[in-house]
Amino acid sequence: MRLAELSGRSGVSTATIKFYLREGLLPPGRQVNASNAEYGEEHLRRLRLVRAMIQVGRIPVATVREVLGHVDDDSLGRSFRLGAAMWALPQVPEPDQEDEHLDSVREEVDSLLDHLGWSNALALRTVSPSYRSLVLALAAFRRLGYGENTDIVAPYARLMQQMAVLDVDFMENHPTEAERVEFAILGTVLMEPALTALHRLAQEEETARRYGLAHEPPPDAG
Amino acid sequence: MRLAELSGRSGVSTATIKFYLREGLLPPGRQVNASNAEYGEEHLRRLRLVRAMIQVGRIPVATVREVLGHVDDDSLGRSFRLGAAMWALPQVPEPDQEDEHLDSVREEVDSLLDHLGWSNALALRTVSPSYRSLVLALAAFRRLGYGENTDIVAPYARLMQQMAVLDVDFMENHPTEAERVEFAILGTVLMEPALTALHRLAQEEETARRYGLAHEPPPDAG
Repeated sequence: MRLAELSGRSGVSTATIKFYLREGLLPPGRQVNASNAEYGEEHLRRLRLVRAMIQVGRIPVATVREVLGHVDDDSLGRSFRLGAAMWALPQVPEPDQEDEHLDSVREEVDSLLDHLGWSNALALRTVSPSYRSLVLALAAFRRLGYGENTDIVAPYARLMQQMAVLDVDFMENHPTEAERVEFAILGTVLMEPALTALHRLAQEEETARRYGLAHEPPPDAG
Repeated sequence: MRLAELSGRSGVSTATIKFYLREGLLPPGRQVNASNAEYGEEHLRRLRLVRAMIQVGRIPVATVREVLGHVDDDSLGRSFRLGAAMWALPQVPEPDQEDEHLDSVREEVDSLLDHLGWSNALALRTVSPSYRSLVLALAAFRRLGYGENTDIVAPYARLMQQMAVLDVDFMENHPTEAERVEFAILGTVLMEPALTALHRLAQEEETARRYGLAHEPPPDAG
């Protein structure tokens, strides 16, 4: 397809597509003559991914370029390609303060991972930004006098394990390696806000079941 | 206790405590003479909550004041007090674009909630910011050509339901009504980043189980 069709099908303006091409976020099309190039389905797919990261995830262009560099690196094995792309994404926001509880929380998290049988997460702990974010978040809890021990984390971790099985199953529904990595990125950028909203909604449902509805819905509801 | 002790036990400077007092984020102590006031355990607890919201959650002072106003409003019933405080918190980040899929996604979410038996969430849907965030996040997914239907959300919702039962159980471990509402706020501000990190860690564990470790840990890994 030509640039105009790519723009029409993706809903992204031709000016923005040209910007993405210049910035290397979209691979060049196949040049058919001096002023026209031909684009394929893979361009459409990539355009969606770039749009999701920039417009929905509000991820900076330089970070998007880095993530895509890992997606496109055929020299990497599957796990490393996926891991490198995911770890290049912006991380979970972290408390901005150093913490006196870090060492003890780290030890407890390690023993929790061991207890859960998450041996891979344990092996990756010195390099995984997710491990780091978890330790920092739990240390902040501890510093405020809550969460005497990390035992309360175990039941949540078991539920997250089931969630991760769903995630990877859905990822595997995609036929090619590139599509799978792209889906994993989209899943993180788009699904995390959806899951947080779903969690809050479930809390509202659960508290309303125990204590009654907060208030009657307004008369125009429904 | 006096101001100095409150500062020592909370780790918050006296200047910051005075600022919180002036801003109405902390109730005044009991005045013992012209220049000294006496503070209690409830001041210490409130100070922790304020600190968590401002320093860890990076929530603006005006929003903190609004949240606390609901926490302290004895005229409200339990559910409404909890709901008002939670809904005054900053919401899940939303895509900044209007969406042509909103109506159809909203219908599908309603039918999902009905199918799940979340009748309270359904009754609250016109007023709940969490409902709104969920619909917007799923619409963004749809707009990018993913998530043909919201069926894939159902198994996640069931896991979130189990998580909400854990959340509310932990909340109920706190003896007083004020402490419960405070814990619910802290849980949202501090636990959501921890849960997101835990989810990513579970994904790393699951992909490593299926495809092998991304790479060997560095030699200094413990």
